Amino acid sequence: MRNLEIKKDMAIIVKKFGGTSIGNIDLIRNIAHKLACEYHKGDALVLVVSAMAKTTDYLFNLAYGISQHPSRRELDMLLTAGERISMSLLSLALMEEGIPSISFTGSQSGIITDEKHGNAQILKVSAFRIQEELNKGKVVIVAGFQGVSISKEITTLGRGGSDTSAVALACYLGADKCEIYTDVDGVYTADPKLVANPQLLKYISPELMLTLCYNGSKVLHPRAVEFAIKYGVEVEVKSSFTFAPGSLITRIKIPNNEEDKMEERKVTAISYKDKLIRYIIPVSEQVSDMLTLCNYEIYKSFINAGFLELFVETKYETEVDYFLQDRGIEPKNKESNLAFVNLVGLGLGHDPAFLASVIENSKNYNILRSYNNEQSIELLLPNNHLSEVVQKLHTIYIEEKQ
Amino acid sequence: MRNLEIKKDMAIIVKKFGGTSIGNIDLIRNIAHKLACEYHKGDALVLVVSAMAKTTDYLFNLAYGISQHPSRRELDMLLTAGERISMSLLSLALMEEGIPSISFTGSQSGIITDEKHGNAQILKVSAFRIQEELNKGKVVIVAGFQGVSISKEITTLGRGGSDTSAVALACYLGADKCEIYTDVDGVYTADPKLVANPQLLKYISPELMLTLCYNGSKVLHPRAVEFAIKYGVEVEVKSSFTFAPGSLITRIKIPNNEEDKMEERKVTAISYKDKLIRYIIPVSEQVSDMLTLCNYEIYKSFINAGFLELFVETKYETEVDYFLQDRGIEPKNKESNLAFVNLVGLGLGHDPAFLASVIENSKNYNILRSYNNEQSIELLLPNNHLSEVVQKLHTIYIEEKQ
Repeated sequence: MRNLEIKKDMAIIVKKFGGTSIGNIDLIRNIAHKLACEYHKGDALVLVVSAMAKTTDYLFNLAYGISQHPSRRELDMLLTAGERISMSLLSLALMEEGIPSISFTGSQSGIITDEKHGNAQILKVSAFRIQEELNKGKVVIVAGFQGVSISKEITTLGRGGSDTSAVALACYLGADKCEIYTDVDGVYTADPKLVANPQLLKYISPELMLTLCYNGSKVLHPRAVEFAIKYGVEVEVKSSFTFAPGSLITRIKIPNNEEDKMEERKVTAISYKDKLIRYIIPVSEQVSDMLTLCNYEIYKSFINAGFLELFVETKYETEVDYFLQDRGIEPKNKESNLAFVNLVGLGLGHDPAFLASVIENSKNYNILRSYNNEQSIELLLPNNHLSEVVQKLHTIYIEEKQ
Repeated sequence: MRNLEIKKDMAIIVKKFGGTSIGNIDLIRNIAHKLACEYHKGDALVLVVSAMAKTTDYLFNLAYGISQHPSRRELDMLLTAGERISMSLLSLALMEEGIPSISFTGSQSGIITDEKHGNAQILKVSAFRIQEELNKGKVVIVAGFQGVSISKEITTLGRGGSDTSAVALACYLGADKCEIYTDVDGVYTADPKLVANPQLLKYISPELMLTLCYNGSKVLHPRAVEFAIKYGVEVEVKSSFTFAPGSLITRIKIPNNEEDKMEERKVTAISYKDKLIRYIIPVSEQVSDMLTLCNYEIYKSFINAGFLELFVETKYETEVDYFLQDRGIEPKNKESNLAFVNLVGLGLGHDPAFLASVIENSKNYNILRSYNNEQSIELLLPNNHLSEVVQKLHTIYIEEKQ
């Protein structure tokens, strides 16, 4: 066992492992083995884990098998068992490697939240127990996704919960880095499933990452990125299979390169969100009610000429239909198979020549709408053109620019 | 005179003074006096100046008195005389204070641009002459807004040119700070002309500042903010009359405050752009031509349902009408007296409850459209409701939140 006090020059690293990364015993053993090497290098390690892949679905199905409308509070009690299983298994695997380790629930690790069961927000972090165990030379394993309210109720953080737990702990501990381990190598210039030559981004600014994440990139939850921006935490997205360097989400200074056109704007990456339905609904007293209640299901919402436009994922169609019907709201229009594509890069949306070029290059794809802001040009189009557009724009604005 | 070599621990500060700050001899003398004190403290100073207020208009009028369509190249020759006047006057005023100083044109200071006269972009900076003079202990005064192409043609940088010159030089010199002196105290939570209790922001993140600047805040040109983000330059906006601390555009880490609701989203500031005209034009082959040529006049442009929507400032109405007429384009619709209001803050646009609250609070003001992204909620409304909406939203989301 190591020294009982964290040395001043010792790095604190928070590592988060998602459900697919620890989906079975072999994967957990493999990760424990890799972590053992890092431990022996002398870093202080805090490991935040999700539930093993499919566990949450399994638990959900059990609950809905008993009750059609299960209590949110009891659901939280049930679901939090998922991380309890994965954290203790990882702790056991580390002990097998001869590494002293200890697991903590969200509550034990001091993630204090409000009381919104199923979608709680972090109020503050008070992780002194983690600090104490690190001081004893132990690896600390924390259940992601969960917290505790001030009145000691167990809560879950909703979507992106484990990513957010990890970043929040990194912030509290003043960690040198927060590593998010996942089943891909990092952040790509576009979805490798859609383009032939995607490129791994070694660096990306947190703000551009936030735009990507809010516009379809699945690699990291935007809520965690927001947290990282707000509290200045450096995050790396990397592969849990290889542990190789991935994508660092950081504010690097670009060197003043002689070759550079200093003011030239560039596309950093292209994201998309497909299989969307658009509901067009008259703006009414119920708008705020709707937006608040539909929380989970709305991908984007705009007001346009007296109508509220809601874009939701097709998988939520039944839920939203039911929601509207329940309130006697008849959509003026409902359209399926829509997709958004976002070109993301600093200053893009305010460059008329660039915008003109994008419009020119996408004119054969039935672009229904474009919108642009400081770091994004957004195109709305039918799903069936999606992969063609993404590939073409990627070729023109990323591959050919290099 | 000071030591001939910049000491290693000596701070390099780039200071930019706009046209109103050096609008007359008394103002120039006052600034020279204040700068003398800073010089004696030991900082290495680079001063970037605009033309004195009204000089550029005066020169423009002279040119248009001679020719209805003056050559852009000759216009650049003419206009660059403006900064030549202000920089030499400031240099003389500093010498009167006993401070060794030297002035440089954009060309002499190594601001290398492309050849787009009137709207050139910086390709690179090669400011070794500035460095040499700083090493001799001199204050260096640089003509903002101007540069030189590789073929030695004199160019001007277009809008926001002097701000951009200053940030570019700060980047090249590795300056500790780039201070933008102006006729206000810094960046406010809203335009002091519209709200009763505006608050000076001591800090603001560069990305939120960029959003503010692109959406109507006049205190700093967005192009300079983009540059600052890209090359990691720390910028402060402050008063040229008082030299008091202003608003620092920086990525501070917010301390983990016990009182904080860590994930709560907040409105940092509210910006607006008023007196806009919306042209609705069929999307055609000419779209890219239009967007490129209209460069200067377009405030925002969107595609919506087969139509291009252009928002332009009322003052450009004649120009745009002429432009469209010239190409035989008949707008489907033209609407005057529109305004955009933007609530700016990290994560705002993706918080359904927050969006619902904004819609609720602005429902009596004929909101024609809302759009939202990671750090902004944008409302389009008639001009006549503008000041009332801004005041109301400022009261609710900024004043009452404190």
